[in-house]
Amino acid sequence: MAGSSSQIQVNFGEPRSFAKTLRSHCKETFFPDDPFRQFKNEKGRGKVKKVLQYFVPIFDWLPQYNLQKFKFDLLAGITITTLAIPQGISYAKLAELPPIIGLYSSFIPPIIYTIFGSSKHLAVGTVAACSLLMAETIATIAPPKDNLTLYVHLIFTSALITGIFQTTLGVLRLGILVDFLSHSTITGFMGGTAVIICLQQLKGLLGLKHFTSHTDVVNVLKAVFKNKDEWKWQSALLGVIFLIFLQGTRYVRQKKPKLFWVSAMAPMVVVVFGCLLAYFAKVEKYGIQTVGHLHKGLNPISIQDLNFDSKYLPYVIKSGIITGMIALAEGIAIARSFAIMENQQIDGNKEMVAFGLMNIVGSFFSCYLTTGPFSKTAVNYNSGCKTPMANLVMAIGMMLTLLFLAPVFSYTPLVALSAIIMSAMLGLINYEEFFHLLKVDKFDFCICMACFFGVAFISMDYGLILSVGLALLRALLYVARPATCKLGKIPDSVLYRDAEQYPGVTTDPRILALQLGSPIYYANANYIRERILRWIRDEEDNSNPEGGVVEHVLLDLSGVSSIDMTGIESLAEVYKLLDSKRIKVKLINPRIEVMEKLIRSHFVEKIGKESIFLTVQDAVEESSFSLNRDKSNF
Amino acid sequence: MAGSSSQIQVNFGEPRSFAKTLRSHCKETFFPDDPFRQFKNEKGRGKVKKVLQYFVPIFDWLPQYNLQKFKFDLLAGITITTLAIPQGISYAKLAELPPIIGLYSSFIPPIIYTIFGSSKHLAVGTVAACSLLMAETIATIAPPKDNLTLYVHLIFTSALITGIFQTTLGVLRLGILVDFLSHSTITGFMGGTAVIICLQQLKGLLGLKHFTSHTDVVNVLKAVFKNKDEWKWQSALLGVIFLIFLQGTRYVRQKKPKLFWVSAMAPMVVVVFGCLLAYFAKVEKYGIQTVGHLHKGLNPISIQDLNFDSKYLPYVIKSGIITGMIALAEGIAIARSFAIMENQQIDGNKEMVAFGLMNIVGSFFSCYLTTGPFSKTAVNYNSGCKTPMANLVMAIGMMLTLLFLAPVFSYTPLVALSAIIMSAMLGLINYEEFFHLLKVDKFDFCICMACFFGVAFISMDYGLILSVGLALLRALLYVARPATCKLGKIPDSVLYRDAEQYPGVTTDPRILALQLGSPIYYANANYIRERILRWIRDEEDNSNPEGGVVEHVLLDLSGVSSIDMTGIESLAEVYKLLDSKRIKVKLINPRIEVMEKLIRSHFVEKIGKESIFLTVQDAVEESSFSLNRDKSNF
Repeated sequence: MAGSSSQIQVNFGEPRSFAKTLRSHCKETFFPDDPFRQFKNEKGRGKVKKVLQYFVPIFDWLPQYNLQKFKFDLLAGITITTLAIPQGISYAKLAELPPIIGLYSSFIPPIIYTIFGSSKHLAVGTVAACSLLMAETIATIAPPKDNLTLYVHLIFTSALITGIFQTTLGVLRLGILVDFLSHSTITGFMGGTAVIICLQQLKGLLGLKHFTSHTDVVNVLKAVFKNKDEWKWQSALLGVIFLIFLQGTRYVRQKKPKLFWVSAMAPMVVVVFGCLLAYFAKVEKYGIQTVGHLHKGLNPISIQDLNFDSKYLPYVIKSGIITGMIALAEGIAIARSFAIMENQQIDGNKEMVAFGLMNIVGSFFSCYLTTGPFSKTAVNYNSGCKTPMANLVMAIGMMLTLLFLAPVFSYTPLVALSAIIMSAMLGLINYEEFFHLLKVDKFDFCICMACFFGVAFISMDYGLILSVGLALLRALLYVARPATCKLGKIPDSVLYRDAEQYPGVTTDPRILALQLGSPIYYANANYIRERILRWIRDEEDNSNPEGGVVEHVLLDLSGVSSIDMTGIESLAEVYKLLDSKRIKVKLINPRIEVMEKLIRSHFVEKIGKESIFLTVQDAVEESSFSLNRDKSNF
Repeated sequence: MAGSSSQIQVNFGEPRSFAKTLRSHCKETFFPDDPFRQFKNEKGRGKVKKVLQYFVPIFDWLPQYNLQKFKFDLLAGITITTLAIPQGISYAKLAELPPIIGLYSSFIPPIIYTIFGSSKHLAVGTVAACSLLMAETIATIAPPKDNLTLYVHLIFTSALITGIFQTTLGVLRLGILVDFLSHSTITGFMGGTAVIICLQQLKGLLGLKHFTSHTDVVNVLKAVFKNKDEWKWQSALLGVIFLIFLQGTRYVRQKKPKLFWVSAMAPMVVVVFGCLLAYFAKVEKYGIQTVGHLHKGLNPISIQDLNFDSKYLPYVIKSGIITGMIALAEGIAIARSFAIMENQQIDGNKEMVAFGLMNIVGSFFSCYLTTGPFSKTAVNYNSGCKTPMANLVMAIGMMLTLLFLAPVFSYTPLVALSAIIMSAMLGLINYEEFFHLLKVDKFDFCICMACFFGVAFISMDYGLILSVGLALLRALLYVARPATCKLGKIPDSVLYRDAEQYPGVTTDPRILALQLGSPIYYANANYIRERILRWIRDEEDNSNPEGGVVEHVLLDLSGVSSIDMTGIESLAEVYKLLDSKRIKVKLINPRIEVMEKLIRSHFVEKIGKESIFLTVQDAVEESSFSLNRDKSNF
C-alpha cells in the first residue's frame, strides 16, 4: 500500500459551527467584493471620513480635483450636451411624452449622479428601449391621446417606483438579481428593440399621421402600408439625407477614432440644420411636422403630480420594475465595460443606489427614467472625461438651454429626430456578437434569439421573460444534470483524468473511478444515483467476460462544492445497492462543506473512514492491493 | 522546470462537433438510465418481444409466474383488501365524495397497474393528502353541498387530467420535473397535511354537523370551538377508544415487526366492530352518524360525465396537475424506497406512464385519483408480495365486496373512519426526520418547515409553492455563489488542497492558487470575477510588506463542469485586469466541455497554450521557475 502520498490523512475534523458557516455564506452571497474593507480598520474621525467617502463618492474625488481635470471634463460635458439635446427630445417623442420632458431629464439626474455616482465615465441620460417599454406598458391603461396629463403623471410615478426599486436593491446588496439578466439576453434585447424602434421611426420618416400603438414588427408594417396614402416623399427624402449624413459620420469615427467628435456633434448638426430649414423654407406646408412649442424655463416640480391610484398602480409598478431592471443591467454593464478598459472596478450595488437616487429625485422634478446610455457614455469617454464632473457640466449646459434656447428647438422637424433615433439604433444590432454566440455556445445563441425575436414579433416584456426563462431553465439543467466522467490513469504519472478528454489513459476494469460534477442535491440526486449505476453497467458490458467485473467504485468528489440531505441519501442508497453486489465504494477528496455534512449525517461512520481518500491514486492503490490479496487467498 | 508530470500535455484537440455534444446532452437529460439497453442489440422477433416486455411489464414477469409466488401474492392481496375497504371509504369522505367512489377506486386502477406497473411491492390506492387537496381546489368553484353531481364529475375530470399529465411526463421522459420536489419538501408536506387532516377529523370524532370548508389550523379550530354545542361525548368516547386500539396495534408492529398483520387488519376490525355496534346498538340515536346507503354493483361508466366546461376547466386543470405531481412524487419515492430495500431499481418514467394510464382508465369508470400510498405499500411488502399480482387479488377482493358486501359497510360509523384516518396520519408526522434535517442541513430544514407551516396555516398549494420556491432559490444560489477556495501544498507531497480544510498546507505569497466552483456562467460570472480579485487583495493585505505581492494567479478549473459566454468573458476580463497589473494568469486542468469553449472563443490563443497546465503542481513549478529567473536577471 505504498503511495506517493498515502501517509497524508484526510481531514475528519469537527464540522465548523452553524454560526460560522452562516456568516461565511451571507458574506459570500451579499458582500463578495468586501466593500467595507477600506474603513474596517479605521477608527474615530478617520472612519467617519472613509464611510462618508464610500457612500457619497463626490467626497472621495472632489478634494483631489483641479483645473487640469476640469479642462477635460468641460470639453466632455459640452460634447455630451450637444448630444443630449437631440437625444432627449427624440426619446421623449418615443415615450409619447412632451419633448421638453426629455430635456428636463438631462438636467436634474446628472446633478444627483455627480454626487453619488462612482463611475468616472458614465454619462446620464434617457434610453430608447426603456422609453418605448414604459410607453407600451402605461399606454395600455392610460393612452396618452385620451389624457396626456394623466399619462405623464403615471410616467413620473413609474420613474419613482424605478428609483425606489433600484435603491432598495442596492442597499440590500441584491445586485445578484441583475446577474440573472445574462449577456446573451441583453444582446438579444438590444437588437430586438433596435429593430422595432427603427420601424417605429417609419412614422416620422414617412410623415404618417395615423399609426398603431403596437410595437411588434407585423403590426407596425401593417400600419405603415395601410396608410400608404399619407406617405410624404419630401419627408422621406429629407430623412434619408439626414440618415446618410449620420451614418457617414459614424463611419468616419470607425475609420479614424480620433474624429469621434464628428459623429458626436452630428445629431446636433442635423437638428440645427433641420430647424433652419423649417424656419426659412416653411417645410410645414410640404407636410413635414415639427416638434412644436417648447416652454422656456427649468423643470417644474412634479411631486404633487405623482399618482398612486390603485387603478393604475399595478401597471405603474410593473413598468417601474421591469424598466428598472433593464436600466440597471444596461447602466451597470456599460459602467463596468468602460471601467475595465481603464483597469478600474465598479461596485455594482453602489451604482444601483446612485441610479435609484437619481430617479427618485428626478421624479419629483418632471424627469422620467434615466440611466447610463451606451452612446452618451462612449462619447463622454472618448472626449476624455476624468470624473463625474462632466455630468455636472452637461446639467449646466442643459440648464442654459432650458432657460434661453428651448424655443429655438421647437422648429426641429420630426423627421430629423427619427433619423437620429434610427442611426443610433442601427448601431445596437450586434450581428458580430450573434455570430460569435452561434459559434461558441449554441444555447446562449438560442437565449439571445429568443429575446430578439420575442421582442420583435411579440412584445418587449414577453421577449425578455421568454429569454430569462430559457436562461433559468438552462441554469437549472446545469445543476440537474451535472457532468460525470470516468477517470483513467495518464501513463507514467499519478494523474487521473477524464477518459474521453485524454484517450490515452489506462484503466483497470475491476476498479471504476468516476468524477462527479457539482453540487449534489435534490434536483440531481436521483440522476447521479442512476448515472453511477449506469457507468457500472456500461463498464461491465464493455469488459470481456474473462476481464472480471467491477469490484471497486471510486467516487471523486473534488468537484462537488456542496451537498444536501437528498444528495447524502442518494449516496447512501448507492452505497447500499453496491454493497449488496459486493462492490466496494470509496470516496475521494470531499471538500470542506461536503465532509462536514457527511460527518454530521453519520455517512462517514457507515462507509468507514478507511474508505475516504485524499487522491484517486491512493484509492486505486488500496483497491489493487485488496484485489491482489483476495486473489492470493484463493 | 522539472516536474513529476510536466512531460504530460494538456489536450488541446479539436472541439467535438455540435451534433455530437447535442446528442450526448439530450441523452444525459432525458435518458440518464439508458432504458432501451435491453433491446438495443436485439433483432427481429427477439426485439419485438423485448420491446413489448419493456413497455408492458406484465409480459416480463407473467411467463415466469408460478403457484409458489401466487401463494404469497394471494395472502398479500387479501391483507391489503382488508385495508383498502376502510381506507377507501375514509379518504372518499375526506374528498367529500360519496364513500362508494373510494371502493370503486380500488377496483379498476389496480388492474391497470398489474399490467403496466414495474414495481413489485407497490399497492395501488387513494391517498389522504391528494384527496383533501383536490377537494379544496374543486370545492372553491363547485361546492359539493350545492351540486354534488357536478362536483363528482369535476373530480373525475381532474383525475383524467392527472392521468394525461402523468402519462405525458413519462413518455417525454420528464421525470426530471418530479426531482424538483425535494425530499425536504415532501417530508414537510406530509407532516403539514397530516396535521390538518387530523384536525379535519375532529368533525367526525366530535360528531359535528357544521364545519368549515377551510383547511388551515386556525379556521378549523375556530369552527370546532364555535360549534361547541354540537359536540357529542358518546361519539368522542367511541373515537378515542378506536384510536387507542389502532395506535396500540401500530405499537405492537413497531415492537414485533412479524406481527405487522395485526396493525394491517386493525382498521377492518374497527370498521366491523363499528358496523356491529351501529346495527345492534342503534348508535344513531346518540348522534353518532353512519356512512349511509352504499349501492351494490360494480363501477358505473363515467366517460360521458367528464366535464370540460371552460368555466371550471382552469380549476380542474390546476387540481389535476398539482395533485398529479404530488401523487407522482409520493408514489415514485415509495416505489424506489422499497425497491432499494430489495436491491432493485425502478424506472421512474415507466412508473409515471403506469400511474397515468391507471388514472386515465380510472376516470372512465367512476374512480378518482390513485397512486401508491405508503401505508398500503408497506403492508403489501410486509405480507410478502412477490409481483404486481397482489394488486389483481385486491381488485378481485374489491369486486366481490362491491357485488355482495357493500351494503354491510353502510353501517360504519363516521367516527370509526375518523379514527382510522387520524391513526394513519399520526404516523406521517416524521419528528425524527425534522430533527435530523435541523442537525445536518439548516436550509433543508427551512424548506421543510416552510412546507409544514405553509400547509398547516395557509393552504396546501401555497405551502407547497412556498417550499418549492425556497428550494429553487437555493438551487439558484448554489450556482450564483459557487464555492471558491485557496489551495496550499500539503507538505511532502505534490498535492494542493483547500487551505481552510487542511490548515497545515504551505503557500508562496507570490503564487496564489485558487480552486473555482462549478459551473461558471452568467449568473455567477460577475461574482467569480469579483471573488478572484478579492482573493488577490486579501492575499496582498495579509502578506508582510517584504514578502512581495502576488505575481502569479493559478485558477484550478478541475471542478468547473461547464462555462458559457458570459463566463468566458469574465475570465477574459480577469486576465486583462491582472495583465495590466503584471500578474500572470494560469489555468489548470479545464475539463473537456470548458476546454472546447475556451478554444472556440479564442481565449486559449489570448492566454497562450503555455499558460494552461494539467496539475497545480506543474503550474506552481513553472511559476517558481520564472520568479527565480526574473530575480537572477536583476
